[in-house]
Amino acid sequence: MTKTTFSPRGHKHDLEEGAAFAPAFDASGLIVCVTIEERTGDILMVAYMNEESLQLTLDTGIAHYWSRSRKALWRKGDTSGQTQHVVDMRTDCDQDAILIRVRVGGDGQACHTGRRSCFYRSVVAQDGGPALIFDDGDHPH
Amino acid sequence: MTKTTFSPRGHKHDLEEGAAFAPAFDASGLIVCVTIEERTGDILMVAYMNEESLQLTLDTGIAHYWSRSRKALWRKGDTSGQTQHVVDMRTDCDQDAILIRVRVGGDGQACHTGRRSCFYRSVVAQDGGPALIFDDGDHPH
Repeated sequence: MTKTTFSPRGHKHDLEEGAAFAPAFDASGLIVCVTIEERTGDILMVAYMNEESLQLTLDTGIAHYWSRSRKALWRKGDTSGQTQHVVDMRTDCDQDAILIRVRVGGDGQACHTGRRSCFYRSVVAQDGGPALIFDDGDHPH
Repeated sequence: MTKTTFSPRGHKHDLEEGAAFAPAFDASGLIVCVTIEERTGDILMVAYMNEESLQLTLDTGIAHYWSRSRKALWRKGDTSGQTQHVVDMRTDCDQDAILIRVRVGGDGQACHTGRRSCFYRSVVAQDGGPALIFDDGDHPH
């Protein structure tokens, strides 16, 4: 297991206004991560990190996640070449979310469906309830 | 309880390539929502919705969340005036995350600390481990 260097969770004011990085992992040991494409500012994906994957992301500068479906550490791009080089990382007020801006290797895609971003559909109101529309011209390859 | 109009969860291919909106709520009944400022494209916050708050967001065009700390439906802006008008909504490949682009009312802030965005600090490597830096000029009001 990778040695982690996170601070212990402090009081609310310290978490919000302090300089200590004290990420909150949920009951499953995970923190949500929003991944943004450096070039466009577009959101590529939302995924999860455990302590080890967050630490490895910091240590290596390459995005590591925790795959909830495979229950495994996941260095994105290992099989696809779509490695995500982390340009910068942010956290939010209560430090229970991570935001990374990345430069994507390989063919530049992030979604396993063969698209650049996972958010390739809009939710729109229709008779009978909301439906999805493919509207970003981001076709699978 | 608000009547919901979501589709039942289908098979993987239907979830990814279909037109039915079948959001996945986790064991706590929640789905993560990333909220983006329409004007700038900046990420304002990451929060959670339950079925009712997602349905109300669709029905009213105003962002509703579920407050995990207060365990209550939360129509953002009710006390602060920082109402979020939803310009559009997206979901991701497996439909377990929501993305909304909003126009913020009131003073335009989204963070309870008095800042425009909750992501006002970068995580940077320092001797002894990662630390946080306030670097976006987004000072509390």
